[in-house]
Amino acid sequence: MNDHTGGTTMPQIDVDGTCATFINVFPTRPRDQQKLLDLLLSAHENVIRHRPGYVSSSFHRSVDGYLIVDYTQWERREDFEAMVRDPAVLPYFAPIGELTTGEQHAYDVVFSHEAASLPTAG
Amino acid sequence: MNDHTGGTTMPQIDVDGTCATFINVFPTRPRDQQKLLDLLLSAHENVIRHRPGYVSSSFHRSVDGYLIVDYTQWERREDFEAMVRDPAVLPYFAPIGELTTGEQHAYDVVFSHEAASLPTAG
Repeated sequence: MNDHTGGTTMPQIDVDGTCATFINVFPTRPRDQQKLLDLLLSAHENVIRHRPGYVSSSFHRSVDGYLIVDYTQWERREDFEAMVRDPAVLPYFAPIGELTTGEQHAYDVVFSHEAASLPTAG
Repeated sequence: MNDHTGGTTMPQIDVDGTCATFINVFPTRPRDQQKLLDLLLSAHENVIRHRPGYVSSSFHRSVDGYLIVDYTQWERREDFEAMVRDPAVLPYFAPIGELTTGEQHAYDVVFSHEAASLPTAG
């Protein structure tokens, strides 16, 4: 699943502090990982991406099956916090809460470095 | 602290699977967070960024003081795994291990979405 078509709008790690970064870690089990991912993507598609201040979300599935991580960016920390408290998102979060004890944390990107020569696709 | 000068090389979340993504979570305490960050940055600067297959690292400090997250990209999973096992990095990892029980996981980026209109800097 991939919402990008041309690769030109892939979210960038925001070391310049233009927006607020949250890393949301959802522990799970291999047998529940896909179901949890489907619920998270449904919440994203139906409510989260439409909330004020939303900038980007990127869902990561651990290869070992035990984690899902959402790396998400918002215009301001308060926008994300308001989304989490919004009664409209509760019907989407309730079944997620039955599968995982997710933890949300706000972060400052303090350092970012990229190799001078990057690998090319393919 | 910011290793970028022009913002043109900020790491992008790699939804196209061009490289291997690892998210490394280091629990800590507010009073140790800066010391742990300094040790991680020293390891990055002196050994990790010079290992074969390194693509990028981005260090995130949780606002609550309890976590540091390194979002790092490598050409292949094997390159990261070889770096972690390399005896040359042990002197850098030993003091880090006294401050945290870090967990490294390999991830597939399964979905990424960005708002159509992004906020502008400043």
